[in-house]
Amino acid sequence: MTKGEETRQGIIEKAAPLFNRRGFHGCSMSDIMEATGLEKGGIYRHFASKEEIAQAAFRYSVESSIKLRTTGVEGIESPVETLRAMIARFVHTPSAVPGGCPLMNTAIDADDGNETLRGLVREAFKAWRGRIVAVLERGVVAGEFVADADVDWLANTVMVTLEGAVMLSRLERRKDPLLHAQRALDVVLDSVLVS
Amino acid sequence: MTKGEETRQGIIEKAAPLFNRRGFHGCSMSDIMEATGLEKGGIYRHFASKEEIAQAAFRYSVESSIKLRTTGVEGIESPVETLRAMIARFVHTPSAVPGGCPLMNTAIDADDGNETLRGLVREAFKAWRGRIVAVLERGVVAGEFVADADVDWLANTVMVTLEGAVMLSRLERRKDPLLHAQRALDVVLDSVLVS
Repeated sequence: MTKGEETRQGIIEKAAPLFNRRGFHGCSMSDIMEATGLEKGGIYRHFASKEEIAQAAFRYSVESSIKLRTTGVEGIESPVETLRAMIARFVHTPSAVPGGCPLMNTAIDADDGNETLRGLVREAFKAWRGRIVAVLERGVVAGEFVADADVDWLANTVMVTLEGAVMLSRLERRKDPLLHAQRALDVVLDSVLVS
Repeated sequence: MTKGEETRQGIIEKAAPLFNRRGFHGCSMSDIMEATGLEKGGIYRHFASKEEIAQAAFRYSVESSIKLRTTGVEGIESPVETLRAMIARFVHTPSAVPGGCPLMNTAIDADDGNETLRGLVREAFKAWRGRIVAVLERGVVAGEFVADADVDWLANTVMVTLEGAVMLSRLERRKDPLLHAQRALDVVLDSVLVS
């Protein structure tokens, strides 16, 4: 990394938790200046606009989350155990970037016409869905899941249950909603297991 | 209602969708002035601060949502059918106030230190949980649900699955995630039915 790239990356890493916690409108350029210790000009040397920083920060937050939440999952042989481990990882590991799940936060925040950011969130959910569907399809091939398991239904169910649970857990500052979500997903997964 | 109360109520009803869509930081006093056609002074005659408008708007949004989502549900005899109707109502009826579910929107928005608003969201989820638990407990007494059904687990599962689903449905502008959530909740409810 050149010195310039390092500065740019530093801005992204400092801005990511600000945007994740406060949303696009709630995070001002002054907040980013304060967090980075840079002048406005120093930041605008690397980014054309606050929008561009928010987009780079979101990408960084998503990458960090994926890294954190797939660690230790890849080595598991059984697809159904892989999926359970992915869920457990989500339930027991806090978000890589402080402020809760960046996908949900940005989805809620960006429905106010911020179309580029909204597009990035959509892509992130699509990619997550793809990773879950891939595991489910391996599970069907391996004979763990029934042949007619509706993988889209299951993938959406996993994502929305976990996202809703992280919201409620954060609001109530207790882990129960996440643990309850995990138990509910076990029931749903059991319903498509080959017995 | 006096003329003053009418004006106050008008401000609340105009501000509610703005806060619900844009969040606290994203909705400015100018936005509220524009939506109501009132001068700043005219608004501050009824509210001490933007915070106070946001709180009144949130209360109004929650009341409207409850009204909308319980219509037609109260007349059902069977507790399990009541619960399924509550879920169906959530899945098929858009939010009373434009911008998605005010509970989730405000939960995500208010974790940036807005403690009064956060307290109101917590109360709203607690009240919703209470309504679901009451139906579940009637279902246990009626012999529809198994005696050891974990009503807290079930109530949290219903809430987080629906909330996550409304977020993803809005993001992807399609109904699938909500329909999928309903199907998943059917599976979970079936697991505690007396067979």
